[in-house]
Amino acid sequence: MSRRTPTGAAVLQPQVTEAITEAVLDELAEHGYARLSMEGVAKRAGVGKSALYRRWKSKQEMAMAVICDHFIATLDVPDTGTLRGDLRASLESVTGWLTHPRFARVLPDLVAEMVCNPELGEVVGLLVGEPKRERTAEIFRRAIARGELPQDTDIELALDLIAAPVYWRFVVRAAEAGPTYLDDLTDTLLRALRATSS
Amino acid sequence: MSRRTPTGAAVLQPQVTEAITEAVLDELAEHGYARLSMEGVAKRAGVGKSALYRRWKSKQEMAMAVICDHFIATLDVPDTGTLRGDLRASLESVTGWLTHPRFARVLPDLVAEMVCNPELGEVVGLLVGEPKRERTAEIFRRAIARGELPQDTDIELALDLIAAPVYWRFVVRAAEAGPTYLDDLTDTLLRALRATSS
Repeated sequence: MSRRTPTGAAVLQPQVTEAITEAVLDELAEHGYARLSMEGVAKRAGVGKSALYRRWKSKQEMAMAVICDHFIATLDVPDTGTLRGDLRASLESVTGWLTHPRFARVLPDLVAEMVCNPELGEVVGLLVGEPKRERTAEIFRRAIARGELPQDTDIELALDLIAAPVYWRFVVRAAEAGPTYLDDLTDTLLRALRATSS
Repeated sequence: MSRRTPTGAAVLQPQVTEAITEAVLDELAEHGYARLSMEGVAKRAGVGKSALYRRWKSKQEMAMAVICDHFIATLDVPDTGTLRGDLRASLESVTGWLTHPRFARVLPDLVAEMVCNPELGEVVGLLVGEPKRERTAEIFRRAIARGELPQDTDIELALDLIAAPVYWRFVVRAAEAGPTYLDDLTDTLLRALRATSS
């Protein structure tokens, strides 16, 4: 049984969107943001350029939409009942995210690009960084409410401390870590944040 | 009074080396490592390419030598007599280094490049990262000797914690920090490291 599908511009086929998304991520990982192009993505996804422009106005809009979808929409904020549990799970998830073969290339490239292009930096901050931080802050707000962290906890600094050591160790230094690294880091951060439950 | 200068390859004029060094740093900051070339550097420095090849065998050797000279040879490891003082001074110096208009572009670019080119990553680690860490570790060894830090302090993690939060805040996030940021971070790290003097 076949039926005619509407041909209006409003219909965006999910499997085409999925193919484009994969192509954008692959192109970003392989060639970086500066060399990302609508042509390259269309070719890789096996679609016409019009399929891209029907979805997004520009390369920047396309890249941001894909990155948000892939890394923010799927963000799981742990809720284990304790700050230690939430912190350990967050460190594990950030580590997985930053060392994932594909994303491990995307973020350092974006950072380098953002230094030369502060407007891109603002967009990434607004669309990717802030939503991710806003949701992750929940961990610390709950810990404060449970009395595990002081009322005057610097949540901005606390959020930095979840990602920063892991990014520095595994991405900037590309160094190894022993099997107890994430446990040791959890203990270290609990002390840093004056957790009563450490 | 003029005198003939020797024309042998052994004589490297310091003012030429200085001009080349500046040109390498400017080219790295403006165009990045991938597009760095012996031609571009020679042109910018106003010297012939032979002046470069007399000093270094390759672009990689040239870039590493310049970066080492500029950022390692001039590294001042503070020795204030207390861990708090040394940590505060180190954080200040790392912040100045990472947010310096010129170097702020060089490091993120190198990190992105190293992800695609692990051999470059190894060279940077060996020639830049490790010597810097080895010298900075002195701060923690002295604090252990003074009894300010436990004997079993994880110096690898401690070293990460000097650079990581500052890199994440000012470089990756390109975010602002309040006037008490470095003092707050010092307190936070003293707690993280179980300093007795915090």
